[in-house]
Amino acid sequence: MKKNSPLYGVKPEVLKSPAYTLRAYEAEVKLNQNENPFDFPEDLKEETFRRYKERRWSVYPDFVPDSLRFSLAKFTGWHKDGVLVGNGSNELLQAALMVMVGKGSQVAIPYPTFTVYKLIANILGAKVVGIPLNPDMTYNVDELVSKANESRARVIVVNNPNNPTGSVLNKEGILQLLEKFSGFVLLDEAYYEFCGCSGFEFLERYPRLIITRTFSKAMGMAGLRVGYLLAHPDLATQISKAKLPYNVNQFSLTAAEVALENLERFQPAIQSILEERERLGKELNGIPGIRVYPTQANFFLVEIPVEPRTIFDDLYRHGILIRDVSSYPMLSKCLRISVGKREENDRLISALRTGLENAGAGAVHGTL
Amino acid sequence: MKKNSPLYGVKPEVLKSPAYTLRAYEAEVKLNQNENPFDFPEDLKEETFRRYKERRWSVYPDFVPDSLRFSLAKFTGWHKDGVLVGNGSNELLQAALMVMVGKGSQVAIPYPTFTVYKLIANILGAKVVGIPLNPDMTYNVDELVSKANESRARVIVVNNPNNPTGSVLNKEGILQLLEKFSGFVLLDEAYYEFCGCSGFEFLERYPRLIITRTFSKAMGMAGLRVGYLLAHPDLATQISKAKLPYNVNQFSLTAAEVALENLERFQPAIQSILEERERLGKELNGIPGIRVYPTQANFFLVEIPVEPRTIFDDLYRHGILIRDVSSYPMLSKCLRISVGKREENDRLISALRTGLENAGAGAVHGTL
Repeated sequence: MKKNSPLYGVKPEVLKSPAYTLRAYEAEVKLNQNENPFDFPEDLKEETFRRYKERRWSVYPDFVPDSLRFSLAKFTGWHKDGVLVGNGSNELLQAALMVMVGKGSQVAIPYPTFTVYKLIANILGAKVVGIPLNPDMTYNVDELVSKANESRARVIVVNNPNNPTGSVLNKEGILQLLEKFSGFVLLDEAYYEFCGCSGFEFLERYPRLIITRTFSKAMGMAGLRVGYLLAHPDLATQISKAKLPYNVNQFSLTAAEVALENLERFQPAIQSILEERERLGKELNGIPGIRVYPTQANFFLVEIPVEPRTIFDDLYRHGILIRDVSSYPMLSKCLRISVGKREENDRLISALRTGLENAGAGAVHGTL
Repeated sequence: MKKNSPLYGVKPEVLKSPAYTLRAYEAEVKLNQNENPFDFPEDLKEETFRRYKERRWSVYPDFVPDSLRFSLAKFTGWHKDGVLVGNGSNELLQAALMVMVGKGSQVAIPYPTFTVYKLIANILGAKVVGIPLNPDMTYNVDELVSKANESRARVIVVNNPNNPTGSVLNKEGILQLLEKFSGFVLLDEAYYEFCGCSGFEFLERYPRLIITRTFSKAMGMAGLRVGYLLAHPDLATQISKAKLPYNVNQFSLTAAEVALENLERFQPAIQSILEERERLGKELNGIPGIRVYPTQANFFLVEIPVEPRTIFDDLYRHGILIRDVSSYPMLSKCLRISVGKREENDRLISALRTGLENAGAGAVHGTL
């Protein structure tokens, strides 16, 4: 490479790393990003505006958002000094990985999973040890433990429930990881409100467990970027070194406080998503030719007998946006569908059924 | 270290790196963080609320904030594909360093300067080559170039104007760096609106120059965390790989757009700060025993003949908060004072004069 090239001096691991990109589509029915179909409540928006109006925008946010950390400590039951607040949980995952791994380190990551873990590890120069899920998308914990130990991985990252498969690592599985794997266990619990499963009860006993969660999904705040991390206070202190000062803007901090003070207001949306998940699962299962994987999150992974892109495009033409995950390993026949509102799910079901029929999937199924 | 310690596996460079901390003080007159003493205009706050109310908070921000990038491209006159938007310019500095340096790399940083550069470099495992400013706090460009080249630094980070000294690297100096140093030149222009000097004109010709700027200072948006980066589009693409997706929340993006559409509204505040800088500089110079360094930013570095902490504490008791920078290298006798509103500066001057007199500084000066 030429010395006056703009890329001369960029780390080779960065140059060969793909960028995380997502084409911006717009559609009436948006079931592509596992967002909450119910918006942040109107009156709580007003309350957030009212509080934020009184603050000077020209002044930096609190150096450490202590009042939010305090509320989160109370809410979760964890030590305040072990709670970190981030610009989305992604920032905290990045900070955690930054303090643990560097060039030459190994990071164990089951796959298929959320792409960002691998991207962060790559940029940091770490090597990713990928461990496949079972063909039915369940976790193979023995394999996880042995591969992670064998490669001397510094950390294993588990998304629980897992995006994009919906798979859950149950408590026995989490415990087995904590007992048998000798590195850090980083549990990304972005979807935990839809599952109820959590590694939380193990935090006190296993000081190398780190849990991240988010306000983006169940709390309807994806646009505001607020996440939190729970870990042993000594470890949290180290992780905070890789977190930039004033990393969360004061408006989002304000909204998060309003949300935590009004937790009960978010329950109806969660309840509705859980009921619709149940119903949507049954409806999807009733469509000929489709395979629906069990999920504990607010989305479904489905396998279809035709080219996923065809169906993605067809749905998009009908105003419905889902996620084509066919480029993920093991998922070449798959699509991911977020659970929406009842009427959105109805539109999806009907369009998907017709789309598959038109693509000949029903016929194929019928002849089997 | 014990295997079940929460710190076992944390990188040694992180363990030995200090955390960036700032004790939270509150005071009537806040001259400690180089914030804009004039808040974001009220009617533009309302306009931001109005626009953001119409958006769903539950939906992720734009994957790439194209409309803001477009506005910034227009505003700066740079290629849109070479503009990145970040959660404060710190995030962009971190992303830039992440793609350039790792364990064992060298980063050249003049000192004293903004602490965050060194913290980021340390966490990434890079070695910092510190190059002192001249005793009068001006840049020694020959020394910068030779030390940076000698150490084979991958990048040199220059804060221009420099925090906390106010020093400026003029155009000839920037050009000399670009011509003679063989690595990347990262210019942090956080305070450029108070200076007018910029490396911008060199971007087209020197594809390894990177400029970061912020909405935190002149635009009165420190609480909202918005910064931007200008670089060769190919380099910007690489840097964007280390930037997390959806890194800037939609509320702050909205506020930044409102600000750019109403640029003329921020001019009176900037003008007033510049006038007050002139006046405050003269007033400070008139206080016996004090040395005032020339500044092109919205703050002053002053050297005083007594223990800086004494004066810091004394001012704080009088409701005035400034920054004690005496722990910085070369600045053991120094304080940093942001330029406030006229009445704030008056209070500062009067309290500082009395404080120094009481501490005996005037007397010492009188005998010289």
